Amino acid sequence: MKLTLREIAAHVSGKVIGDPGINVSGVSEIQSSLPGTITFLGNPKYKKFLTETQAEAIFVSDEDHLKGKNGILVSNPQLAMAQTLGLFFPDSEPESFVHSMTSIDSTVAIGKNVTIDPGAVIQGDAIIGEACWIGPNTVIGTNVTLGKNCRTKANVTIYHDSMIGNNVIIHSGTSVGCDGFGFVTENSVHEKIPQTGNVVIGNDVEIGSNCAIDRATIGTTSIGDMTKIDNLVHIAHNVKVGKGCLITAGFAVAGSSEIGDYCTFAGQVGVAPHVKIGPNSIFAAKSGVTKSLEGGKVYAGFPAREIKEHNKREALLTEITRMRQKLDQLIQDRKER
Amino acid sequence: MKLTLREIAAHVSGKVIGDPGINVSGVSEIQSSLPGTITFLGNPKYKKFLTETQAEAIFVSDEDHLKGKNGILVSNPQLAMAQTLGLFFPDSEPESFVHSMTSIDSTVAIGKNVTIDPGAVIQGDAIIGEACWIGPNTVIGTNVTLGKNCRTKANVTIYHDSMIGNNVIIHSGTSVGCDGFGFVTENSVHEKIPQTGNVVIGNDVEIGSNCAIDRATIGTTSIGDMTKIDNLVHIAHNVKVGKGCLITAGFAVAGSSEIGDYCTFAGQVGVAPHVKIGPNSIFAAKSGVTKSLEGGKVYAGFPAREIKEHNKREALLTEITRMRQKLDQLIQDRKER
Amino acid sequence: MKLTLREIAAHVSGKVIGDPGINVSGVSEIQSSLPGTITFLGNPKYKKFLTETQAEAIFVSDEDHLKGKNGILVSNPQLAMAQTLGLFFPDSEPESFVHSMTSIDSTVAIGKNVTIDPGAVIQGDAIIGEACWIGPNTVIGTNVTLGKNCRTKANVTIYHDSMIGNNVIIHSGTSVGCDGFGFVTENSVHEKIPQTGNVVIGNDVEIGSNCAIDRATIGTTSIGDMTKIDNLVHIAHNVKVGKGCLITAGFAVAGSSEIGDYCTFAGQVGVAPHVKIGPNSIFAAKSGVTKSLEGGKVYAGFPAREIKEHNKREALLTEITRMRQKLDQLIQDRKER
Repeated sequence: MKLTLREIAAHVSGKVIGDPGINVSGVSEIQSSLPGTITFLGNPKYKKFLTETQAEAIFVSDEDHLKGKNGILVSNPQLAMAQTLGLFFPDSEPESFVHSMTSIDSTVAIGKNVTIDPGAVIQGDAIIGEACWIGPNTVIGTNVTLGKNCRTKANVTIYHDSMIGNNVIIHSGTSVGCDGFGFVTENSVHEKIPQTGNVVIGNDVEIGSNCAIDRATIGTTSIGDMTKIDNLVHIAHNVKVGKGCLITAGFAVAGSSEIGDYCTFAGQVGVAPHVKIGPNSIFAAKSGVTKSLEGGKVYAGFPAREIKEHNKREALLTEITRMRQKLDQLIQDRKER
Repeated sequence: MKLTLREIAAHVSGKVIGDPGINVSGVSEIQSSLPGTITFLGNPKYKKFLTETQAEAIFVSDEDHLKGKNGILVSNPQLAMAQTLGLFFPDSEPESFVHSMTSIDSTVAIGKNVTIDPGAVIQGDAIIGEACWIGPNTVIGTNVTLGKNCRTKANVTIYHDSMIGNNVIIHSGTSVGCDGFGFVTENSVHEKIPQTGNVVIGNDVEIGSNCAIDRATIGTTSIGDMTKIDNLVHIAHNVKVGKGCLITAGFAVAGSSEIGDYCTFAGQVGVAPHVKIGPNSIFAAKSGVTKSLEGGKVYAGFPAREIKEHNKREALLTEITRMRQKLDQLIQDRKER
Repeated sequence: MKLTLREIAAHVSGKVIGDPGINVSGVSEIQSSLPGTITFLGNPKYKKFLTETQAEAIFVSDEDHLKGKNGILVSNPQLAMAQTLGLFFPDSEPESFVHSMTSIDSTVAIGKNVTIDPGAVIQGDAIIGEACWIGPNTVIGTNVTLGKNCRTKANVTIYHDSMIGNNVIIHSGTSVGCDGFGFVTENSVHEKIPQTGNVVIGNDVEIGSNCAIDRATIGTTSIGDMTKIDNLVHIAHNVKVGKGCLITAGFAVAGSSEIGDYCTFAGQVGVAPHVKIGPNSIFAAKSGVTKSLEGGKVYAGFPAREIKEHNKREALLTEITRMRQKLDQLIQDRKER
């Protein structure tokens, strides 16, 4: 498949600089760009690769970066790259059929244009919205609702009573609606607290592989619209995650905590139970949130603090060596007098 | 479903304060209590919600908290809540049948009242105890033994030769008995050490979603009776976990370590290989255990220390600023003389 | 099954010390050695168990350790143990058949002596090499290539276009080729960047349970030959892992980072995106790599530093208490004068 710069520019609302008739057959990254492709300058630190690139054309946000090369001027080169990848690799179309090697309860309601792959199991009273694609060996429990155009990959498990919005993607091995970790200890016996609530996931959410999202003890564990979750993430019972959050791999949040809208978590962050994190917070990797935070700031460390405060504390260690020298000098001076 | 306070009090061995004929139709949490329900005061920090609650009744451990409202006096309100949830949400009854879309070896022994869901695969010589419920697409390896009344949810894998006790619950995606991480390096080649042991899990154990519990190299990896394990937990080969432990999400213990009875681990804790942790230990989140610990104490930090010692060290950083001021003052004084 | 020391010595290229006709029926560990078995002294710290062992014979690298007991002299007792375990527990032979409860696309190419267990799903144009064994309920996507003699355990998912080498073992629940976590945010909307690349895994790789290895956005995420990966490990999109690495549980590496050959990572380590780690690096548990490292050294801490530097910093905290005493003494002295 080949596309001209003219065609691509039209798709990404950009302006061709140079020859609009140039053909490209794919997208490549600037640091490893290939002949015959279009590349992009997303991160200024990659400018150094501009001169040596063998790509036919470059997405840039500043015409000067082209230095005579062919390109497409756009406001966001990374977005243009994403849109162009979508042109070259359109989503594989589901085939809208239900495979015979499946087990689908007779009470399940299935929308139009649904695809159900081999090995899938769908239990009683589930509702599968229009254009959903249920991957191989995925299990959907009783009374689950999936909105329109959802996609569960292979070996996913969605427990009973979960409610999933539209355009939700869930990757392989993820478990949605498993029991929360709730026990009450009486006379050294851990009694299970029945986990009677459910999980509600908004629209446009994506969840990576091998995550676990617990159902609520009472009420609902919820993930807001457009929140994106990476692999191996744990969301405990009764947690509320806002909308538009970006949660990267290895994150774990304990029971009943609330995370505001548009929060970003780098890898391996932990959040204590019963805390509230304000919106627009950003957390550095391996942070540990131990108490409620107002939000709107960048946090780091364990316990998580505003990053300036955190960096100051880290710098104190370096200070000690200098202080020791001064101190020893003072003591020496005193002896000599 | 509606129950009177009289019926509920009888079930939880409590005493009705107020009108025993009051009907409730569910349980709610004190901070979000609903009309028509019974709520509970488990944590004293939620006392402030008592006055405004719209619930019909409250489980309390102190009659004074009711201030004229209807309630049930119990020694442990959280336990009473758990027991009452069990009344309103009885465990869904397995249907005691074996689905036709399953693959069960002819040598498998299946007890009475067992349910085997679609897609399950049970291999040769496995023994499935009375009243077990094998979830959809779960795989049970050769020579596995499940005790009575076990429940594996969907997409669980139990490798060959694992021995599981009674009343064990295993959540979706969990892998029990996978190979330990054992290699011996000779001339830069990592040779696999055959993992020839197994996993033995006691009675009344619960294991969350997407955990991995490795079989022993030689001998047994064991999880004691009534230990409860959260999601995304890693238990390496030859580890011995005692009974009654509570292990929360993101925990990882390396090979051959031993964890005593009734230990509690907050989230994302790590334990080094070949260490021994005494019973009744409690670990703060993100702790890293690097050497054997006597037990019976609260530990925190990395390396994990008794929490008092840990807190003292953390406080030292704050000390530095004060010391620097004193030091600079001394130097200044000296110059001025 | 019983073997003589003569037979075992021949298999491990060792020399019998004592009676070569002695029979043993298994291998045991020195700290819990059993009558009728052969044990081994791998770690010198276990020497104390030599005198009391009830094993029939011992693998040693130094004849003096035997003190009159029967044994086999080898250069690497742990390797000899591994090889002997392999004699007593030969790999279970796959049965070279395709179970009827499977779904295999008609375009799939299947090599000789392949075993496909019940519930497996293999999609269009996949190539399954000679002597592969596809475990129960495993899903293999379109256009996946598996080399010779690979083994996927139960409930594994391999996404479309992944290329797997020879002799690769993948444990239960692992997801290979899932989408990378790639979004571009424009006007507060997180647009998905199509993940159009793939995953390439070399020969002799082993991957534990419930791992997630993301496909590349563009190009390839790669795992080098003979790299061994433990459970619950996250490898992000476009990461390059070298050959011969040992990566233990709870590890997470972010997008586009490169890890050199023969690196070793203890548990719960994290690596930032876009960093490069030189070969032969060793990382202590819970390290956090925040920038590129030359390699060939031992690193620890967060941010990860050479371990000597890290230990010095940790020791500074202990220094503070001593400094405070000196400082207070100086101040006291000054007052008294």
